[in-house]
Amino acid sequence: MASQLESAMESLIRVFHNYSCQEGDKYKLSNVELKSLLQNELGDFLGSKDPLLVEKIMNDLDKDHDGEVDFKEFVILVATLTVACNDSNMLCRGIGEGM
Amino acid sequence: MASQLESAMESLIRVFHNYSCQEGDKYKLSNVELKSLLQNELGDFLGSKDPLLVEKIMNDLDKDHDGEVDFKEFVILVATLTVACNDSNMLCRGIGEGM
Repeated sequence: MASQLESAMESLIRVFHNYSCQEGDKYKLSNVELKSLLQNELGDFLGSKDPLLVEKIMNDLDKDHDGEVDFKEFVILVATLTVACNDSNMLCRGIGEGM
Repeated sequence: MASQLESAMESLIRVFHNYSCQEGDKYKLSNVELKSLLQNELGDFLGSKDPLLVEKIMNDLDKDHDGEVDFKEFVILVATLTVACNDSNMLCRGIGEGM
């Protein structure tokens, strides 16, 4: 049976491919696929009213400027957001507490 | 309700803190805590008989050389392993198929 961490890693792969296979290159997220993923999977988390948010995230992620986001670029986004989420949790719990 | 992606991100945070709070600095993994995490959470995945594997991973992860692994360093490990796992899945599915 997969551990909690292995299940989380599998989920990252599954979520990416659920969206990347919808159009064009099956192994990359197009602009439309990325927008759909962000809205459905990170809607609460991002919660932004900024219509340009997807554009900004696409530009940030698309390191090789091919107009698409590959899995590695996607994982960098998830890692960055997860670290930000952890940091804000620690602020809520008073980071000085445990030092 | 959290999406699949948000649940995976929360799992990464929860797993890290389940181990980091066992001894010393509550917000960092000591060598002992990292070894316990790797064996319990990534035992199948790493499956190595190399007794020095934990040492090697600790040295790779511990970018600031404080002898401990913080959450950001941990997420880099998970991201790297997840990309490797995705790449090997794609090789099994014949990556040339969709291009």
